[in-house]
Amino acid sequence: MTSHGTLGVAVIGTGRMGADHVRRLTDVTSGARVAAVVDIDAERVKGIADGIEGCAAYTDPAQAMADPGVNAVLIASPGPAHEAALLAAFEADLPVLCEKPLTPDAASALRVLEAEQKLGHRRVQVGFMRRYDREYMKLKALLDSGELGRTLMVHNRHRNAEVPPGYTNQMLINDSVVHEMDITRWLLDQEITAVTVLRPRPSGNAPEGLDDPQLVIFETEGGVLVDVEINVRCRFGYQVQAEAVCENGTARMGDVHDILVNHAGRWGGTIAPDYVERFEDAYDREVQAWVDATRRGEVTGPSVWDGYAAAAVCEAGVRAQAEGRRVEVELIERPALYRA
Amino acid sequence: MTSHGTLGVAVIGTGRMGADHVRRLTDVTSGARVAAVVDIDAERVKGIADGIEGCAAYTDPAQAMADPGVNAVLIASPGPAHEAALLAAFEADLPVLCEKPLTPDAASALRVLEAEQKLGHRRVQVGFMRRYDREYMKLKALLDSGELGRTLMVHNRHRNAEVPPGYTNQMLINDSVVHEMDITRWLLDQEITAVTVLRPRPSGNAPEGLDDPQLVIFETEGGVLVDVEINVRCRFGYQVQAEAVCENGTARMGDVHDILVNHAGRWGGTIAPDYVERFEDAYDREVQAWVDATRRGEVTGPSVWDGYAAAAVCEAGVRAQAEGRRVEVELIERPALYRA
Amino acid sequence: MTSHGTLGVAVIGTGRMGADHVRRLTDVTSGARVAAVVDIDAERVKGIADGIEGCAAYTDPAQAMADPGVNAVLIASPGPAHEAALLAAFEADLPVLCEKPLTPDAASALRVLEAEQKLGHRRVQVGFMRRYDREYMKLKALLDSGELGRTLMVHNRHRNAEVPPGYTNQMLINDSVVHEMDITRWLLDQEITAVTVLRPRPSGNAPEGLDDPQLVIFETEGGVLVDVEINVRCRFGYQVQAEAVCENGTARMGDVHDILVNHAGRWGGTIAPDYVERFEDAYDREVQAWVDATRRGEVTGPSVWDGYAAAAVCEAGVRAQAEGRRVEVELIERPALYRA
Amino acid sequence: MTSHGTLGVAVIGTGRMGADHVRRLTDVTSGARVAAVVDIDAERVKGIADGIEGCAAYTDPAQAMADPGVNAVLIASPGPAHEAALLAAFEADLPVLCEKPLTPDAASALRVLEAEQKLGHRRVQVGFMRRYDREYMKLKALLDSGELGRTLMVHNRHRNAEVPPGYTNQMLINDSVVHEMDITRWLLDQEITAVTVLRPRPSGNAPEGLDDPQLVIFETEGGVLVDVEINVRCRFGYQVQAEAVCENGTARMGDVHDILVNHAGRWGGTIAPDYVERFEDAYDREVQAWVDATRRGEVTGPSVWDGYAAAAVCEAGVRAQAEGRRVEVELIERPALYRA
Repeated sequence: MTSHGTLGVAVIGTGRMGADHVRRLTDVTSGARVAAVVDIDAERVKGIADGIEGCAAYTDPAQAMADPGVNAVLIASPGPAHEAALLAAFEADLPVLCEKPLTPDAASALRVLEAEQKLGHRRVQVGFMRRYDREYMKLKALLDSGELGRTLMVHNRHRNAEVPPGYTNQMLINDSVVHEMDITRWLLDQEITAVTVLRPRPSGNAPEGLDDPQLVIFETEGGVLVDVEINVRCRFGYQVQAEAVCENGTARMGDVHDILVNHAGRWGGTIAPDYVERFEDAYDREVQAWVDATRRGEVTGPSVWDGYAAAAVCEAGVRAQAEGRRVEVELIERPALYRA
Repeated sequence: MTSHGTLGVAVIGTGRMGADHVRRLTDVTSGARVAAVVDIDAERVKGIADGIEGCAAYTDPAQAMADPGVNAVLIASPGPAHEAALLAAFEADLPVLCEKPLTPDAASALRVLEAEQKLGHRRVQVGFMRRYDREYMKLKALLDSGELGRTLMVHNRHRNAEVPPGYTNQMLINDSVVHEMDITRWLLDQEITAVTVLRPRPSGNAPEGLDDPQLVIFETEGGVLVDVEINVRCRFGYQVQAEAVCENGTARMGDVHDILVNHAGRWGGTIAPDYVERFEDAYDREVQAWVDATRRGEVTGPSVWDGYAAAAVCEAGVRAQAEGRRVEVELIERPALYRA
Repeated sequence: MTSHGTLGVAVIGTGRMGADHVRRLTDVTSGARVAAVVDIDAERVKGIADGIEGCAAYTDPAQAMADPGVNAVLIASPGPAHEAALLAAFEADLPVLCEKPLTPDAASALRVLEAEQKLGHRRVQVGFMRRYDREYMKLKALLDSGELGRTLMVHNRHRNAEVPPGYTNQMLINDSVVHEMDITRWLLDQEITAVTVLRPRPSGNAPEGLDDPQLVIFETEGGVLVDVEINVRCRFGYQVQAEAVCENGTARMGDVHDILVNHAGRWGGTIAPDYVERFEDAYDREVQAWVDATRRGEVTGPSVWDGYAAAAVCEAGVRAQAEGRRVEVELIERPALYRA
Repeated sequence: MTSHGTLGVAVIGTGRMGADHVRRLTDVTSGARVAAVVDIDAERVKGIADGIEGCAAYTDPAQAMADPGVNAVLIASPGPAHEAALLAAFEADLPVLCEKPLTPDAASALRVLEAEQKLGHRRVQVGFMRRYDREYMKLKALLDSGELGRTLMVHNRHRNAEVPPGYTNQMLINDSVVHEMDITRWLLDQEITAVTVLRPRPSGNAPEGLDDPQLVIFETEGGVLVDVEINVRCRFGYQVQAEAVCENGTARMGDVHDILVNHAGRWGGTIAPDYVERFEDAYDREVQAWVDATRRGEVTGPSVWDGYAAAAVCEAGVRAQAEGRRVEVELIERPALYRA
């Protein structure tokens, strides 16, 4: 560690998400600094490194990991580049915060799972940042308290104002619903066992080739029924809501209504335009939690197992969507390293 | 009574409020019918009577009260005409529902009070319809239950989108704040002992000569402090809110938010445009309660004492407003007829 | 009609619902009176009739319909008795308000449909009272306005605190979800074409033999996807909520939060204990609308076609529930009498 | 500055607030570290310093400020000690974050004001942390936007579950209402010109000698009327609410209702127990903003003028409370250093 135990982080990938993490580690997070940035675009990465005191620029993740100022890795490159970067980090035995998805499919996630097991200890926290959202945390605390009894159903709403051009039905599962897949597994502490995807006649706002919205249904090993309205071009703003229906009551989150205005015949307020505003605090808390745990020599948060399970549920979801039927999720037995 | 005990009502005054009561008694209320209508405009009143089966037209209230089909009176004429109509009803010993104000000032209200006492039994229900609003009723029930302890303060908001031309500072007290005066007395079961009126720099929307909004403060005999934001040209809609601050908790009503819409970057809903929409149910319930009590031979609801007390508090309020100081309310001792 | 055009109603069936309608017609509704009551229990029906001025007691619906004081019929007997009473009313050519269900199954509903067609004009309003709930009415008005674009999905929550002993999975469809079936058809002005029923592991509160809660999914002819959480022993109170997801926004009703209390570490309010409190106004409005239309010589509101369609969707729902699969709804072609 | 520009902060005072700031600077804030801690209790301060890498312990603020590792000062000692510490910081020309109150009275605040003016540049940010609360920030942004027109009134609620023993009527003004004094000046960008304090009959929960709750009224130079319900032993939790009433609408904040639970006949959620939970984010943001500005060589946030003005308004408030009358606020002319 550097003086005062400050964590020196190599940020791999400097696109939108990577650049945001560079800013976060520099200006928001306590106890960490960006010691290296990595991007295949040499000019871009040099420009970024030049703006940060004591920060080196690399085009190769492994070289950055060998930098003596680096003692942790944050992977924010495109999904297909994750596997190589993760294996390099295992090679260097460095702690990692890996943006979701862990890897693009279950097979590659399984290879990472095996590599980490070979290492013999957990090194990776996967970037499912919703687990660090204050409302989800309160909801989980309430469910875990048992005050409302066993959870029977969960209703989710996931609404995006807009999606980038080229957004496909598969991306709707892999990039959007994947959040509810992880949150479901975490909230309930249960694996998802089957996925069904239902579709109304698409919105006139849906771009060519995208069936928007859709209703995705999960079944869990404990018999909980979870529905997800995924609605990626709803126009009016960004909303994430969840209602857990339990034996003795229900609990709902996501009606974030802070300032109430009366004006021009209406009461109400503004809706967050996108996930950045809605989940900014969760990202901050996620990275701080990773830095804190890493400085204590611990690994906490979503594991490689969680990344693998999400990939497996996504594969089932994409199949369910394509084939118009219920598809069961196939998971290997959970390795000892990832139990409790 | 007519066959089936239907109450034959003479409606005195056929302006906006009177016409609305004619419609209500005919189409909404159970157990009553309009047996006579009275207005100084002979042509107008004949036109109205002709549209109602078995309804006679009069220009003189006393004549209408002598009609054998009439066994109850609803006074909805302008305030200055109330005293004469009330005295005529006492003469005929008929039950009365008298729209607020009972009379335009405390002195005339006192004369009515004395006349009813001379009669020896209550005959009049005064039209403070807010007491029949479901939310106010629930609030009163909660306060009366004692669950929250003694009431210490009440914060009120009374907002009108618009006022008619010619609306004055005195009308703001006599026509608008009078509702909070009655509601305060009823909710707390205490008399108001002093009034203070404070004024911010008026809104640019306030018409010439009207200081809008104002903050009116009541003190009660039990030491409760009540504030009223009266805001009669707020533009955005009609709102009536109240929050009781009690020893162990608070209770708020008036955020009537039924349909919640997400649209165009905002969450929220519509605000009632005026008191008609907001208090329509209260008017219906008020008139039905009067008809029901009358058919049972009882008199319930706000009494002549309540009408007199409101007039006395209004007089103090208008003086407090004009003189910019705290003014104490002067009330005669409560006559036995109006105790519990 | 009686003097003043008062509608003389024969109320058939004097159980809980019938007795409540007797009270409503007598004390709440304007323009109607109970001219006859009918029940197979002769003693009971006489007792009720004796308490109402000018009301006759009968044990046979047809005899009551022949009473000269009767000019309309309200059927509130058990479902299996409806068909005979309806046919008798057609015979007498009297207007009818028939409590739901129209009849217990699609086949019998079809016979009623044919009988009314033979009569050549509509005579029956079916008692789907939710259509008269103010919130549902506002929601429909908003959807019909087109402001939010086409409706894509509707999420419904239907929660009962308790069910009577002996409540079965079929009753959960036929008695509870039937309300959402009708509301869906009415809100969207579309037929339901298929039903699927999903079940989580039942609540520990579910009585033996009842799978509670369940998630029922409707598809409509216009491609709308509708989900219904039916949760009949949720313990905490009675709640009916609906959220329409449209192309450009969403609209949610059913969060009826009037009085907000801060007390003992919590903010919030009370939940209605049962449908009586929640839908009392809707029942009042329904009956008043029927009386008003009948006095005008019109028939409005839910028709025999609506009763038949609900029965057909219920049959599909019960099959879907029993067989664990998507079941298509079979409807005859809509007869001319029931088109727009 | 230390390597990487980390700010070395001397924290003066290690009571509840000082200890919390030590934790915050160490674990939460980016870009700062605790370089020195100061307390008159030598043993206590040594114990704290020993737990932080590279942190020195002092009993004298001036000595700490002379420590070469110290380049900024956070004053969290009791109010009466602030003046000396501030003057020492001016002597050392170090940037300061000074917890509120700036000093205990207007006279001493004036001396600090003069000393800073002599220095010739602003050095002090005063710890009015509510300005960093996200809801207040949104409210101010909305008011500043002019969308709702000029502000006419502001209604505030300030509720504490409990106060420590010995809490007096003066503390109610100086320690509690002082927050609304600052927030009013900041939200409106106007000075407060007069204060009135009204009192209902005190709550049975009020400790001997404390009149709780009270209603405090401010007038501002722009003619805005501001009321504050201060309610320091309300029992049910901690709540801070504000509603600005503007010419064309109103805006309300402070109904922080995140998780909504239906349970046991009630809907609702939990209330924050105290200001720590409610304003934790504001404290974090305040300190981060101070560190960020200091590292940029700037001074932002509430100034010594704001501290002085708050002290002057408090003095008027205490007099108004004691004398039961409206008291005007006396302020010197605003020095050039504190304009715009």
